Amino acid sequence: MNSSIQHNKCRIAVDAMGGDFAPLNNILGANNALKLNSSIEISLIGKEKDIIDSSKKGNIDLQKFSLINAEEVIEMSDIPTEAIKSKKKSSIIIGLNLIKDNKIDALISAGNTGAMFTASTLILGRISGVGRPTIGAPIPTKTGGICTLIDSGTSVDCRPNHLVEYAILGTIFVREMYGINNPAVGLLNVGEEDTKGNELTIAANKLLKKSGLNFVGNVEGRDILAGTIDIVICDGFVGNVILKFAESIADWLKTKIKSYMDGSFTNKIRTLIAKGIFKNLFSPFDYQRQGGVPLLGVNGISIIGHGKSSPLAVQNMIFNASEIYRKNLINKFKEAIINYGNK
Amino acid sequence: MNSSIQHNKCRIAVDAMGGDFAPLNNILGANNALKLNSSIEISLIGKEKDIIDSSKKGNIDLQKFSLINAEEVIEMSDIPTEAIKSKKKSSIIIGLNLIKDNKIDALISAGNTGAMFTASTLILGRISGVGRPTIGAPIPTKTGGICTLIDSGTSVDCRPNHLVEYAILGTIFVREMYGINNPAVGLLNVGEEDTKGNELTIAANKLLKKSGLNFVGNVEGRDILAGTIDIVICDGFVGNVILKFAESIADWLKTKIKSYMDGSFTNKIRTLIAKGIFKNLFSPFDYQRQGGVPLLGVNGISIIGHGKSSPLAVQNMIFNASEIYRKNLINKFKEAIINYGNK
Repeated sequence: MNSSIQHNKCRIAVDAMGGDFAPLNNILGANNALKLNSSIEISLIGKEKDIIDSSKKGNIDLQKFSLINAEEVIEMSDIPTEAIKSKKKSSIIIGLNLIKDNKIDALISAGNTGAMFTASTLILGRISGVGRPTIGAPIPTKTGGICTLIDSGTSVDCRPNHLVEYAILGTIFVREMYGINNPAVGLLNVGEEDTKGNELTIAANKLLKKSGLNFVGNVEGRDILAGTIDIVICDGFVGNVILKFAESIADWLKTKIKSYMDGSFTNKIRTLIAKGIFKNLFSPFDYQRQGGVPLLGVNGISIIGHGKSSPLAVQNMIFNASEIYRKNLINKFKEAIINYGNK
Repeated sequence: MNSSIQHNKCRIAVDAMGGDFAPLNNILGANNALKLNSSIEISLIGKEKDIIDSSKKGNIDLQKFSLINAEEVIEMSDIPTEAIKSKKKSSIIIGLNLIKDNKIDALISAGNTGAMFTASTLILGRISGVGRPTIGAPIPTKTGGICTLIDSGTSVDCRPNHLVEYAILGTIFVREMYGINNPAVGLLNVGEEDTKGNELTIAANKLLKKSGLNFVGNVEGRDILAGTIDIVICDGFVGNVILKFAESIADWLKTKIKSYMDGSFTNKIRTLIAKGIFKNLFSPFDYQRQGGVPLLGVNGISIIGHGKSSPLAVQNMIFNASEIYRKNLINKFKEAIINYGNK
């Protein structure tokens, strides 16, 4: 695979079978993406019959797409390590092999996250010098920006050097995709002093200080939403717990508001108004808009979306893939990792 | 020390110097507690002159209290391990030694948390069989209950058996103090399956299953607020990060609401109408009401409060201490730990 050759059009494969509303939402999203962006080509990978049936339902002309039949489907409930061995004819495996063979430039999937992660790592391979590929999660901060939390849950037993890799990959990603020139990297910890932390973070702090990145030191749980740090690095165990906790807050608030509404008539009116405000407030947490996250550290463009992806989410995943391709991000990751290794 | 002898009145020492608004708030809180509860005796420990000055300011009759002079003060900025060695005449050290000598039954302090924790562990000693004393944090759930998060930040490198100790101490605490007969204990993890997790949680899961507690298995970040689990067990690193993140949400929301309000005139009006609801929503997170948390696993009653404790918070810390004493909690902890050891 020679990822340095840039084609005129970015060739993106959409896993038509991935997600709770597949293939309809996937095809609708792909169709919209093609309408809005003329610099991409889209292949739909999945069960041909299902794709054709859905295209009729969505009134979509399939002529614009390449259709690649995949007889098998990796289900949400499948165990990733088993599924990627036993379902070689699934859309995910076929798509990743097409990237490997340089037939396409990117795969997007709203399917089984674990399977996408494991299969991408195995089939595309890791970028030389990367021990653990990772996924960053975009967290909306109080100042209206984004704090990227890495690792968001892929590696639960990290070593200090993995945290440094996350910081390097995250720095390139945030710089290129969000246009932040020298993003501030913080290490998630229990206190700001260098001596604070567990074995992992005390060792990682020392490595990060010598990394040449814009490392601002240890940060605490409260700094994630504060808007002062662009990238927060942590073990995937901590990242997973924080993310799932954060996602549950909207629900907590909704229930609390509802219980308040059960009061007087005035409360009812006030609650209805508050409800609208809250909906607006939590829209930055709306993963439909975000449109998936790329796997960082693998040798190719692989984007993972939410299982409940809407057509808009699928469309934005496709745009993300295209932008990562145009900006030649995989090669920039490679250079940054080599530079760090040469230090 | 013979903690099984119950005195007619519970003898509580208040660290008059601890907290950002000491000694005034501490004395006001102690004064209110005495008015409302006739089954306690209160000693005020601190700089005699400061206490007398504040009592005049607060118009409080000091006759009702025992006054114990402490020439030194452990400041918020002091390094705990150093302060407890160098400031033997501080209110915290004097108070804990009085518990050890069975002169008082409990100490409450809104001062330096680390110093209270370390000094309590050293001076009172650990309950036999407890490797790591701990602090649980009460989290308000969406169903209106409390989920106790243990460890909330005292031990950042836990071993599996420490997590089991937290579960045992937490079970007794929640049963006795919140009246929940057989509290449900969950192990904070990245997935519900027993095979999920890092080395620590995979090993702890096995031990918890054999513990005889009401262990419901692994739980995830989203379960903390869900109201389905009474006690969530985790490493102090994870607990600290979650708690500080949770505490920052109110601020995040406030800023978001403000920026919404800065929008159109209609937004302004809507926000003003809804404001009361937002205030009401976050009142369960109001630590002033909670009134401190007890140190679990030490051989005596030691309660740590927030540095910004109001008189109400101090009063509630005193009531908590009295209740723990009346319910003979320290002995119940001891029995539970012995029972587990005999399994």
